[in-house]
Formats: sequence, C-alpha cells, structure tokens
Amino acid sequence: MHTAIDVIRAKRDGRELSGEQIDWVVDAYTRGLVAEEQMSALAMAIVLRGMSEVETARWTAAMVASGRRLDLSGLRRPTVDKHSTGGVGDKITLPLTPLVAACGAAVPQLSGRGLGHTGGTLDKLESIPGWRARLSGDEIRARLDDVGAVVCAATEDIAPADRKLYALRDVTGTVESVPLIASSIMSKKIAEGVGSLVLDVKCGSGAFMKDLGRARELATALVGIGSANGLRTSALITRMSAPLGRAVGNALEVAEAVDVLRGGGPADVVELTVALAREMLALAGLSDVDPAVALADGRAYETWCRMIAAQGGEPEAPLPRAPHVDVVTAPRDGTLRELDAYAVGVAAWRLGAGRSRKEDAVEHSAGVLCLAKPGDRVVEGQPLLELHTERPETVEAAVAALDGAYAISDADAGSTPLVLDKVADRDRAPASPSTG
Amino acid sequence: MHTAIDVIRAKRDGRELSGEQIDWVVDAYTRGLVAEEQMSALAMAIVLRGMSEVETARWTAAMVASGRRLDLSGLRRPTVDKHSTGGVGDKITLPLTPLVAACGAAVPQLSGRGLGHTGGTLDKLESIPGWRARLSGDEIRARLDDVGAVVCAATEDIAPADRKLYALRDVTGTVESVPLIASSIMSKKIAEGVGSLVLDVKCGSGAFMKDLGRARELATALVGIGSANGLRTSALITRMSAPLGRAVGNALEVAEAVDVLRGGGPADVVELTVALAREMLALAGLSDVDPAVALADGRAYETWCRMIAAQGGEPEAPLPRAPHVDVVTAPRDGTLRELDAYAVGVAAWRLGAGRSRKEDAVEHSAGVLCLAKPGDRVVEGQPLLELHTERPETVEAAVAALDGAYAISDADAGSTPLVLDKVADRDRAPASPSTG
Repeated sequence: MHTAIDVIRAKRDGRELSGEQIDWVVDAYTRGLVAEEQMSALAMAIVLRGMSEVETARWTAAMVASGRRLDLSGLRRPTVDKHSTGGVGDKITLPLTPLVAACGAAVPQLSGRGLGHTGGTLDKLESIPGWRARLSGDEIRARLDDVGAVVCAATEDIAPADRKLYALRDVTGTVESVPLIASSIMSKKIAEGVGSLVLDVKCGSGAFMKDLGRARELATALVGIGSANGLRTSALITRMSAPLGRAVGNALEVAEAVDVLRGGGPADVVELTVALAREMLALAGLSDVDPAVALADGRAYETWCRMIAAQGGEPEAPLPRAPHVDVVTAPRDGTLRELDAYAVGVAAWRLGAGRSRKEDAVEHSAGVLCLAKPGDRVVEGQPLLELHTERPETVEAAVAALDGAYAISDADAGSTPLVLDKVADRDRAPASPSTG
Repeated sequence: MHTAIDVIRAKRDGRELSGEQIDWVVDAYTRGLVAEEQMSALAMAIVLRGMSEVETARWTAAMVASGRRLDLSGLRRPTVDKHSTGGVGDKITLPLTPLVAACGAAVPQLSGRGLGHTGGTLDKLESIPGWRARLSGDEIRARLDDVGAVVCAATEDIAPADRKLYALRDVTGTVESVPLIASSIMSKKIAEGVGSLVLDVKCGSGAFMKDLGRARELATALVGIGSANGLRTSALITRMSAPLGRAVGNALEVAEAVDVLRGGGPADVVELTVALAREMLALAGLSDVDPAVALADGRAYETWCRMIAAQGGEPEAPLPRAPHVDVVTAPRDGTLRELDAYAVGVAAWRLGAGRSRKEDAVEHSAGVLCLAKPGDRVVEGQPLLELHTERPETVEAAVAALDGAYAISDADAGSTPLVLDKVADRDRAPASPSTG
C-alpha cells in the first residue's frame, strides 16, 4: 500500500522511487486521490533531488498510461514525428511535415497552442482561411494513409496526467527540472503512437536552454526516455540566438513556410528543415530518399496543398495582412552582428502575435519581419525590422522591447553553425522500411 | 510587487528570502491569496534548502502577525511560560505551572490537544470533574493576576497562519524541517504575550529528536527566534528514552502530578519540574526564590487547587479509574535496564489514551503505569507494567506493542543524567523583577 506522504518523503530524502511508487502516484494524482498540494511538494522534491534515467522513463510511461495511446499500427507508411523545444520564428513543422510525407513517411503532428511570443503551430495554420485543427482518431489515420501528413489538435485523452501536472507546475515554481520537462514532452509524443521521433532541442538566448551543456542534458534525457519506451529517437541541438528565418508571427510564418515549400525562403529555415527531414527519414528506414530533391521538385509543396485542403483549408487563398506596418531602420552603416531572438519574440508578442492566458486569442496578422539577418551589410536608414499589428498603439511597447536587441559594427560577423550537436540512441538500429 | 512564484523560485534556487517577501507570503497565504499547492512547494523548498536564523525569526514574526498577540502588560507579576517538544509521560506542565506561580510569576499555559500517545495537557486536565479549558482573554488576565497560573485552550486568533500551515505540512511530507518546526512552536508562544520562555527539548527514542546533535540544533533555533522577537528564552535538552515518571495516560498523569505537588511522586518528575522552575524563575527575575521549598511546604499544591477551582474543577474529587487493569510481569530476576518510551507510548495509545484524528475523544482513564523503572531490581513474576483500559479487547494489541520494549539483565544499569544540556541566550540579561 503506497501513500502520498511515503512517496514524497522518499524523494525528499534523496531516495530513488520504485516503479510501483511512480505508477501509483501518477495514477492516483490523475484520479484526484493524491491532492494538488501533495503533488506540488513531490514536484519540488523532484526539482531539487532529481530523478534517475530509470525513474524518468517510468514516470513518462505512467503519464502515457494515464490516457489512451493512439493506435497507428497497420498504416502503409512508417510513422515518424518531430518535436521542437521551441524558439522564436520556429515554423519548421510547417514545411517539414509535408516534406517528410512526400518522401514516404507518415507524420502525425499532434500539436498544442501554447503560451508564447507567437501562437503554436495550430494557431499559425488557423490563419489559413477554412483550416480546422480538430480531427477524430479515425480521420487522423485516414489522412496519414492518403496524404501522409496531419497537423491537428491533441485529443483530451493524450496523457491527461501530464496536462494536469503541467498546469500545477506552472503555478508552483516547479517547471525548471530536466526530468519533469523531458517526461512531459515525451509522454505526449509516445502517446501519439509513432515509431520514430526526432527532437529539435533549441539552445541560446531565445530558448529555454541557454547553454550547450544544459541543452545536451535535456537532449540526452529525451532520447533516453524514448529508447526506454520503445521509440527510435534522436535529437539535434540547434542554435536559437537570432530568430529562425525572417518571419515571427502566425500568418507571417505560414507565408515564409510556403516560400520554402516553393523552393525559396530563408537559407537557415531551408537548412534546418532538410537536416531534420534527413534525420526523420533515417530513423524511419527511408534514408535512401533525399528530402532536398523532394523540396526542389515541388512534391513537398503538393503534399502541403493536399494536407491543408484535407482539413478544410484553402492553400492558395490570401493570408490575413496587418492593417498597420511600422519599420525600424538601421542607425548607421555596417554589419548586423546580432539580433536577439528573445527581444524580437517579446516585440511580436506585444504586437499581438502571442497570448499570455490560455483563453486569449492571437492576432493572426501580427508579428515582426526581420528584413536583415546577422551577417548582412546594412546602410544607415535601411529598414531592419517590420512591425505588423492590428493595433498601432502597441508599436511603442514593441519598439521599446527591441531597444538594445541588435548591434551594427564595422567588422564582419563570424558565422556559427545552425546544428550544434546530435544526440543519438546508438544502441538501436533504424527501422526496416516495413515497420510503422 | 511580490508573487508566489517569485518567492518559491528564490528559495528553490537557494537564495535568502527578504523580510518583505516573508511578510508578504505568510500574510497572503493566511488570506488565501497564495494557494495551498504554492505554499506546499515553498515548504518543500524550505525543507531542502533551509532558512537562515534571520529568515526563521522573520517567518515566525509574520505568523504571529497573522493573528492577535495577547496583551499581558500591566500584570502585577512577571510572565513566563514553558514549552516541551513532547515525550511519553511528560506531565511536567501540571505541577510546574502552579509551582512557578506559587513562587511569584504569572504562567499562562495556552495549550492544544494534539495527536499522540496520550491527549494533550487540556485532555489530561479534563479528567478532573468540572474543569473547563475555554477562557476569554479577560478571564486569562484575571486568573493570572489572582492565582498566577492558567492552563487553557489557545484562542482561534493565536497565529492562524501556523494552524493553516501545520495542517498543510502534515499531509505534504514537509514536517521535518528545523526552521519550520521552530517557527511553528515559537509563533504560538510569542503570540501568548509572555516576557520569558523556557523550552524543554526532548531527546531520545521517545522524542522527535533522536540524537543530541539534532536536539541542540532545534534548541538553538528556538532560542534564536525568541531572542530576535524580544523574548528572554532558554532551552534545556532533556532525556526521553524511558517514560517520564511512572504514569502514561490522562487521569493517571494527573494523579502523579498531584503526588508531586504533595511532596511525593517519582524522582525524575520532581527533578525535572524543579529544574525547569528554576530556569523559568531566573528568566523572570525571581532567581532568589527556591522552587524546591515551595514544592515541599505545600504552597505549590495550594496554588494547584486554586488554579483548578478557578476553572470549575474539583481538585479533591476522585479521578476516573479504568474498569479493566491487566499486568505485564517480569520474565526473570535481574535489573530492568531499559524501558522504551516509544513502545510504552504506543501501548497507551492502543489502550485508548490518545487519538489519531482531531475529531476523536480520548479515554481519560486509559494508559500504562510503569511499576518498575530502568535501574530497579526486579524478581521473576513481579508486575512491571499495569495496562488500564475501558475496553479489554485492546490489551492484546498493547501487549504486542510492548514486545521487546524492556530488557532485564544481571548487570546493574548505569545512570544517565536527566538534563543533558542547556542552550541560553547569552546576550540578554534576566528581567528585573518589575517587568512582565
């Protein structure tokens, strides 16, 4: 017989929790038998005492077991997904999902809306006229079989323990724990039922993990949980100091994604999309397909159009445009040496692109366009940033957020690579082409 | 502007809380603006990160400020109180309060009922026919002025933050923290309004603090809080391995206390009562009065009778007696070398002397009488323990609890002192006789 106090005390005193203790406490919490104040004491003990790899894997499995796991067996394609820990201008899911589907895999992107500088992937896609996020389990399977790509809202029965625990951690100062962050991410992805998963762990000023050491720690925890739960998993650690691409905002990012799918778009977005696609295809047993070709020859864009249309959207319809656009200009000649992702994110949020409470709506047309990127030569008076909003009165606060966010100097900027490191699960072979 | 999350994060990350943060969080928690799950995360962070002496003193002051502080100014006698951290057979409050009053001080013992092996001091006194625990603030002042001794229930407005926090800590595994234990004890005593306080910190198998190091740590924290909040405070660390005295139970302990007040009773109870009385009188500026004399010449007993009568009790009325008494006999000849306080406490509780839920009633007549004490020579078949209960079916469980609780050997037992150490606040002088 377990009790909440025994489990709390064990972790408080630095002991490793048994599998049975973890199964019990997660299940009892989900069913309301362990009180919120008891789980919050346990969460704080976990923040300060940590969890081992074995504990973290079991904790994740218990959160998966609190709900239903999607059954994707019997699909004609191998299943693979990507998850990013989130950064400013990170719209990679939009071009990546149809690209990997065009290469032969099935990609079920079950996404959330999230609080942040812009909306989540669902908010971004909702700027496309007619597109709807909510699909049933049967619809998801049907779309994966025909189109190969689905981006939709996670159903309520995906890891309910995680949803409850996340809301609690959010108000009790217990978010900042690698085992708790990693198990939260992985419980949702494991419940999605895919065979393989690639993680994009962001690192830098615009990311949750500010330095490479912490990013590696999180990547290792994520890959460890995946392996322990039967998922082929790897992680790329990628730079997030400047915004990714030029667009930060919902409709602005969709437009940029479409540019990429049509063979254009910013170089960094193209590079990261292709790098992640290669990694996903390798794990899915499709490493002989070159995603760069599928992007160049129009197959990825065609899949995008089918994916959007299959969920009611009009891929060719004009996107919403902000009625008010202001510019920030370069104060001098020189090379743009930095453009702080975090500051640009805050500016986009102030212009209306994000939300601070779950109930809030996002403005689809609001956001920031970065007309110059680090490394670009600029001349005095040249527009650096475009501020898009429905409410001109927000511009002043956005400009204030950008104060000190960019630097122009005479020296050329050195370049740093986009993909900083990779964490792979070396013990597991890639899938054979027939497995899902 | 403080927020709960900021305060939680500061402590979680090992920072010292500011006085303003502490004042804010305790007040906001008392008023329900900081949620239970937030306070429990903070409590766990305090358990694992600790609090400095300055933080602990301020935390205590904030809990005092959450309610009303009794105004004992203007009394004719100096005020002084005693608090024990609790042990098996600890009925010292009963003879000590009238003894110190008989020596010229005013002793307001605001007590609780508590969960434990026996009832609290109020439960014990309620075994006296007619005695009532509830007095108003005015009645307390009047009794202190005429009799000098009051034992009564703490009013609801004494440190309400502590009452709320204690209930939370009890279910969240956050009891075991010296700063939280010390501030809980001291907030109630400071709110009582006395000028001086002596702490009896128990140490040993029958106490919360099992070893001398931990007991010293708690004693030092308690004395530090008292000094920082303007109270003359000192602490005796006293042995709690065997039960104190012979009686463990409510009416049984009252009878033993009366024996002591009449000049008899077990030597250890007399010794500790006189030692604590001396310490209290010294702090109250009455060190020229010898409590041993006041005990021997009947003044203490006379004060007891007045104290009981002033609250409706009949001091000479017979106490309730259990209808069922069993004995445990010595299995061999020899010297009783140990008698485990904890086991005797559990036995008394099983016989009906204590409660496990706040709503439960105690059986006034139930308990254990220790007929032999460690160091006594015993012969085979001689009664060692008397088990008193209203329900004979409880005896089996009580006997089981006593299994292995005593040891008899041929060698004589070495004796250990009752008072193990003293922690004093060396920076403060004792009160002059006129101050309260």
